[in-house]
Amino acid sequence: MLIPPAPLYIALIHYPVYNQAREIVCTSITPFDIHDLARTSKTYGIVKYFIVCPVESQRKLAGRIMDHWLTGVGAEMNVTRKEAFELVSLVPSWEDACLTIQNETGRSARLIGTSAKSGPKRLGYRELQNQLRESDQPHLLLFGTGWGMTEELLEKTDAMLEPIGSQEDGSYNHLPVRAAVAITLDRLLG
Amino acid sequence: MLIPPAPLYIALIHYPVYNQAREIVCTSITPFDIHDLARTSKTYGIVKYFIVCPVESQRKLAGRIMDHWLTGVGAEMNVTRKEAFELVSLVPSWEDACLTIQNETGRSARLIGTSAKSGPKRLGYRELQNQLRESDQPHLLLFGTGWGMTEELLEKTDAMLEPIGSQEDGSYNHLPVRAAVAITLDRLLG
Repeated sequence: MLIPPAPLYIALIHYPVYNQAREIVCTSITPFDIHDLARTSKTYGIVKYFIVCPVESQRKLAGRIMDHWLTGVGAEMNVTRKEAFELVSLVPSWEDACLTIQNETGRSARLIGTSAKSGPKRLGYRELQNQLRESDQPHLLLFGTGWGMTEELLEKTDAMLEPIGSQEDGSYNHLPVRAAVAITLDRLLG
Repeated sequence: MLIPPAPLYIALIHYPVYNQAREIVCTSITPFDIHDLARTSKTYGIVKYFIVCPVESQRKLAGRIMDHWLTGVGAEMNVTRKEAFELVSLVPSWEDACLTIQNETGRSARLIGTSAKSGPKRLGYRELQNQLRESDQPHLLLFGTGWGMTEELLEKTDAMLEPIGSQEDGSYNHLPVRAAVAITLDRLLG
């Protein structure tokens, strides 16, 4: 696998995202997302996996689940789960994720959005892979929940990855975010 | 995406698999696996996704969850979930999956195993991709749950796919099966 010079981070965005009626909402944290994205992140050498959710009670619940695997019975029962969960950071906003990266690396992160739709400033996987090989700037990949991140947030990104399915054949375009993260990291780093 | 001439099927094996103590067990059906693997299968043009579990009560429970999305309120609320669930087939054994394929296509399926470990008769992704382009034989990809499919079952496969992580760098080798299926289908068909 590729280990790029640039520290690579991912964030799962629970807010601001659209619901099915295109209202701006905050989605719930799903325990499976914590497990799956942490294990996938650990596999591909991701530095940190941010769960972005402004609702404190949701972050606390996620923290309790993680504690089971980090310090509780789970840590003894399954050490590989512990290793994966050590990458997870619960933050109230994507700006907090950026601030953490700034503090850890001394540099601001390049923000890369993802979407199931095509649109402006799209980057191919090979193109971003080459950029990662040649850069030491930290990169933060944003993944949306619900019906996708808001336009306002996507406008703040430096670039957007192409959708995973091509437009021509992609009549069915509804991958779970757990699959989208796995495929994206494998295309960039696998 | 590649649409090979060969009809491609996948199976999620709940039995026979190992547990952490390497005892042969039957794992539980996880609702997230039904959703995630169905959506990923639909995205990549898989003909059918078999859930292989000999426990009738487990298959019934899975059937009830699916009914909600296939014929219940869920079918109206989310038509793309319905489309994905139409690919799912609950069967008691992998032999039943093979029999279904035989009945549907008039040919026996080539059995391809997957594993997080290396070993004999491993095929590269590019190699299998080329074979899929040139063959019209149905293929069935087997994915294990728990701590992996039993040796006895893997011996029955015609070939095995290489592990997703390479051996040199793959110190962490614990992808969720939901991620493994997504990455495998993307490497073969993406």
